Amino acid sequence: MASVFGQIFRISTFGESHGPALGVVVDGCPPRLPVTAADIQVELDRRRPGQSRITTQRREADEVEILSGVLDGLTLGTPIAMLIRNADQRSSDYEEMRTKYRPSHADFTYQAKYGIRAWQGGGRASARETVGRVAAGAIARKLLQLAAGVEIVAYVRRVATLEASVDPARVTRDDVEANIVRCPDTAAADKMIALIDEARKDGDSLGGVVEAVARGVPAGLGEPVFDKLEADLAKALLSLPACKGFESGSGFDGTRLRGSQHNDAFYKGKDRIRTRTNWSGGIQGGISNGEDIVVRAAFKPTATILREQETVDMDGNDTTLKPRGRHDPCVLPRAVPIVEAMMALVLADHYLRQRGQCG
Amino acid sequence: MASVFGQIFRISTFGESHGPALGVVVDGCPPRLPVTAADIQVELDRRRPGQSRITTQRREADEVEILSGVLDGLTLGTPIAMLIRNADQRSSDYEEMRTKYRPSHADFTYQAKYGIRAWQGGGRASARETVGRVAAGAIARKLLQLAAGVEIVAYVRRVATLEASVDPARVTRDDVEANIVRCPDTAAADKMIALIDEARKDGDSLGGVVEAVARGVPAGLGEPVFDKLEADLAKALLSLPACKGFESGSGFDGTRLRGSQHNDAFYKGKDRIRTRTNWSGGIQGGISNGEDIVVRAAFKPTATILREQETVDMDGNDTTLKPRGRHDPCVLPRAVPIVEAMMALVLADHYLRQRGQCG
Amino acid sequence: MASVFGQIFRISTFGESHGPALGVVVDGCPPRLPVTAADIQVELDRRRPGQSRITTQRREADEVEILSGVLDGLTLGTPIAMLIRNADQRSSDYEEMRTKYRPSHADFTYQAKYGIRAWQGGGRASARETVGRVAAGAIARKLLQLAAGVEIVAYVRRVATLEASVDPARVTRDDVEANIVRCPDTAAADKMIALIDEARKDGDSLGGVVEAVARGVPAGLGEPVFDKLEADLAKALLSLPACKGFESGSGFDGTRLRGSQHNDAFYKGKDRIRTRTNWSGGIQGGISNGEDIVVRAAFKPTATILREQETVDMDGNDTTLKPRGRHDPCVLPRAVPIVEAMMALVLADHYLRQRGQCG
Amino acid sequence: MASVFGQIFRISTFGESHGPALGVVVDGCPPRLPVTAADIQVELDRRRPGQSRITTQRREADEVEILSGVLDGLTLGTPIAMLIRNADQRSSDYEEMRTKYRPSHADFTYQAKYGIRAWQGGGRASARETVGRVAAGAIARKLLQLAAGVEIVAYVRRVATLEASVDPARVTRDDVEANIVRCPDTAAADKMIALIDEARKDGDSLGGVVEAVARGVPAGLGEPVFDKLEADLAKALLSLPACKGFESGSGFDGTRLRGSQHNDAFYKGKDRIRTRTNWSGGIQGGISNGEDIVVRAAFKPTATILREQETVDMDGNDTTLKPRGRHDPCVLPRAVPIVEAMMALVLADHYLRQRGQCG
Repeated sequence: MASVFGQIFRISTFGESHGPALGVVVDGCPPRLPVTAADIQVELDRRRPGQSRITTQRREADEVEILSGVLDGLTLGTPIAMLIRNADQRSSDYEEMRTKYRPSHADFTYQAKYGIRAWQGGGRASARETVGRVAAGAIARKLLQLAAGVEIVAYVRRVATLEASVDPARVTRDDVEANIVRCPDTAAADKMIALIDEARKDGDSLGGVVEAVARGVPAGLGEPVFDKLEADLAKALLSLPACKGFESGSGFDGTRLRGSQHNDAFYKGKDRIRTRTNWSGGIQGGISNGEDIVVRAAFKPTATILREQETVDMDGNDTTLKPRGRHDPCVLPRAVPIVEAMMALVLADHYLRQRGQCG
Repeated sequence: MASVFGQIFRISTFGESHGPALGVVVDGCPPRLPVTAADIQVELDRRRPGQSRITTQRREADEVEILSGVLDGLTLGTPIAMLIRNADQRSSDYEEMRTKYRPSHADFTYQAKYGIRAWQGGGRASARETVGRVAAGAIARKLLQLAAGVEIVAYVRRVATLEASVDPARVTRDDVEANIVRCPDTAAADKMIALIDEARKDGDSLGGVVEAVARGVPAGLGEPVFDKLEADLAKALLSLPACKGFESGSGFDGTRLRGSQHNDAFYKGKDRIRTRTNWSGGIQGGISNGEDIVVRAAFKPTATILREQETVDMDGNDTTLKPRGRHDPCVLPRAVPIVEAMMALVLADHYLRQRGQCG
Repeated sequence: MASVFGQIFRISTFGESHGPALGVVVDGCPPRLPVTAADIQVELDRRRPGQSRITTQRREADEVEILSGVLDGLTLGTPIAMLIRNADQRSSDYEEMRTKYRPSHADFTYQAKYGIRAWQGGGRASARETVGRVAAGAIARKLLQLAAGVEIVAYVRRVATLEASVDPARVTRDDVEANIVRCPDTAAADKMIALIDEARKDGDSLGGVVEAVARGVPAGLGEPVFDKLEADLAKALLSLPACKGFESGSGFDGTRLRGSQHNDAFYKGKDRIRTRTNWSGGIQGGISNGEDIVVRAAFKPTATILREQETVDMDGNDTTLKPRGRHDPCVLPRAVPIVEAMMALVLADHYLRQRGQCG
Repeated sequence: MASVFGQIFRISTFGESHGPALGVVVDGCPPRLPVTAADIQVELDRRRPGQSRITTQRREADEVEILSGVLDGLTLGTPIAMLIRNADQRSSDYEEMRTKYRPSHADFTYQAKYGIRAWQGGGRASARETVGRVAAGAIARKLLQLAAGVEIVAYVRRVATLEASVDPARVTRDDVEANIVRCPDTAAADKMIALIDEARKDGDSLGGVVEAVARGVPAGLGEPVFDKLEADLAKALLSLPACKGFESGSGFDGTRLRGSQHNDAFYKGKDRIRTRTNWSGGIQGGISNGEDIVVRAAFKPTATILREQETVDMDGNDTTLKPRGRHDPCVLPRAVPIVEAMMALVLADHYLRQRGQCG
């Protein structure tokens, strides 16, 4: 049950990094939603490996096949299964990992959990697993857009210590796609690209922060207690490989303020109740208030680095390992469409939950 | 379904802040676990309002009654229902909130969602809801301790900008309970108490960070994809009132490092595989690796401040509001046992899930 | 997780037969539904022990207390917890069962499962557990009635071999409540009462069949595959103590017909598409078609009989047991409101699910 | 969420009858279980259309491809996705159904629910959907066999009014597979085959009853209240196309007996506690008692008959329809492996649930 996400708009992903295929089943999507393979493919292409010099050089077309749930370009209300075949597998790169655990990877923990693991390429722990999420997210995004006018944009906010300046209220997808690092602050973007390039040449890796905004979310989404919108968004983002932190609205920095500085005063807006500030990040008591929802996810530096490292083998003996294999020196640029997908999945699910319970 | 948490060790809370009672049903607890009302009460007493001068002055004994699932001090394997009656309700304090929305509270979003709300004291959005979680958490904690030797300790790590110095590997519950702010760094604790006192007198409020550690967690807990241990911990903590951020291990700061600095090298330990450092915070690929699990939760400054603020009323007209009612000027000291409870709930659930699937 | 039922309109029951209290938490009920304790009580009174000479003589007022989720007679959208205290416990009656297993009861299987059991009165296996279901069902019924005009009536269709003649399309609740056996065929009812009386005096017990009809269910409720309306109704009824069979529409008898006899021809009705016959029992492909939903549940003869029987004790040794304790010589009359409650719970859940996914 | 079944051993099926492919994702299967495509294929071949003259003549190889979750013949503990491509689609046969509803089919109810439907061949309502269940069931069966020595056998017990005589305690799979109708009573089998042949030539259809037994199930599986073993088995079987009834143990007939006749006396067996009779069908209080689990499912006569029938079209006007398309004149023979699969899925799930909660 580890691979099912959502309550009404529910997805179930499958597939190992170096197995025959990956995919996803979307259950609970409303009927008569216009969906084509092209809608999915455009998002998969943004996630695709080998898309630029600062991402992994593994070559995968990641072409999606819709197996069910869509007829003549409309959803049927039944499960939508989507398949992506693996093509460019170089298992030989991983031969050494058959017996040695890569530091800060999931090799050891999978072995501890299951007593077996897909040692080629990380199996389910590989970022390749997210291809199914992005496919499903493309449908969720379409639903939100057509049913409620919701728009979701994510972007790289920070790489290592290089912080960009971005206005979540105005940033557009075109701004984001304008460069290969997906940072809408072009000056910062140039520096980020240079820094990633340098790390890559160095056989090292970098981390950073992705920020995402959802605009046009109606007030009332999210549930009071455990399934708060922030809680489900946090789970969604922390479920991504390499993610180690989550913030909503003012986040960690906001905890340094006093209540008198931090409270968002309400006022009568043109057509709805608004807040003067948005420290809450569009969510109060776990429920959307109609303002922009703003969240941030922290991604650690990629664990795979092309350097000799201390580790142990499957017999528990000390040894060293110098990984080969292709990898992203910094996962941030490709994480952008994945973060958007997860945000869309959470919001679509809560949109349908709200419609179910509150009509 | 908003009020159900967990997959096997599953809890369901109920109750409004100013209704007749609050409580929780724990479903899926293993049989023959020794549990008494006293085990529960000790944790409730740590969460209880009115416990010190820096917490809310509402007086609640928060005495627990076990209604089911326990016979002669042993769990039966059936649902354990626990009831806590409300006593000291002063609904008159809230009369003005019947028609006006408190800024940065859940009044407006509940109204937007449901078209109705328990206007006295915040209803389900009140921190009083967590009393059921703490009761359930006391049982989860006992299970973890007896079945796997797990020990969980949380503490106040930061209040506003006052940061404590604490070693998660060694901190004890006695250290935490040694002062009313629950910060084991006694020098920092004194300053924190003074700062909270000052804010209280000022009618203002403060935020901060709680850190929690789980020691002795066996390797292998957590699920590969959506139900990663970090993802479920993030959801658990972000589901707490006032929580706006979550970190695991190196968290946001770790994203500033390079992979070569951040990777945790494995080595052959005395009786199991260990890591030299613990940037991973005890979790790799979403699964525990046997090292200390370390997480942090950011709590915003309390929204209730005793100051006149700009807001709107239920007709959408601009107005002002000066809240009365009793409140915590800083939720951090009372958040400590709540964070522990949530951590225990997540770990107990994953412990049983692991036992179910992997035997 | 054994005690949670439903996906959106979700209930969670708790309580042992001879513990302090029983109850239920209803999560996911729509807001602003008028609900009072009296609405609940009327259904509990129909289920109450000691209501007539042909039911158990245990005296329980079964008075419900609403603990949460309702304010000024309207639901809040938050969990509705309801409590029923046990009063007339005569644990001494069960002293012998502390060590001996009652034949065809759950004593042995609970012990095998949990290694412990509430030996007084059957614990969770007792029909007393259903008090929570009936309380929750009263709310589900109200929702269905007010939101969709659905009407649910159940009645005793057969006791042992005494079969009643009832028209599900016209039977009313008044017809059902007209006699203590709850069989609307008054001639059959008299014979049933006499038969039950005789069995009771004989220290023996009887089984039979309850039939239930839901009228006014809109077309489109139910899910295509696993959560077919029939599947969820079957689960709901088979989850009742003593239930050993379920039928929908033509059921087992229908399997003797040919397709040409059994198919329900469609025709253009006054305001909607109708079927000439209703062998389908209002459900086709697992989804309601707008016709009356008709189901039947088989209840075995009560396991508790006041006769000496062969059994074993907890040490596994052969022995005999002559149960004391109060019991229903035939569960059918009291099963009627319970079957209605379960049907209401399933339909309310599917009503909200349909609204969520299909808008 | 309509297409997810199970709590720990959880499956999710997808695919339309006349879409590109069908399949299933199995989540929660224990690791290191030996599984090959051949293990799956042997069960699919028993379910395959066109296997004999008394089944549908649609030609489908139903060859399974394992896409994930298995490495070198062992399960990884991760989701196992399995794909079966559709081949022999004759959508032209269904052209008339594009606008007309087949009586007692799901055409009308799908349209009412979703406002759209896969009109070719029944979409998700087609029995083709069960191919994924059988694939998943093959794995569940293997788990039960290897981990607990459980053996599951189903067979045709009745066709129309032709009842077979079979001893559930001794019947073997070889007995079942000895003839094309899958009835181990060979004399009855011959008559059944003749009857089905005759109905087929007549353009008509037949129903009947499948009985299934699980031997070697350990005591203690099943949950006390809603997830009783019987409740989950009932749901599993009623979720099959054309199923209208379910019985466990003595079922409907048992309700005609008195308690003194029906109770199963316990006695000290050779190595465990046994019962003299098995009216309970191996389940007491919803939990297995170690005796043979015996259930029966009623299947109505196939709705597709090759005769002109009264119906309405999508505009709601009266019309007639004479279906073409290939179909089973009696679903019973092919239902046998499907019933076994569902039983295996329920038991495997409860086996893992029991291991999780009760250790």
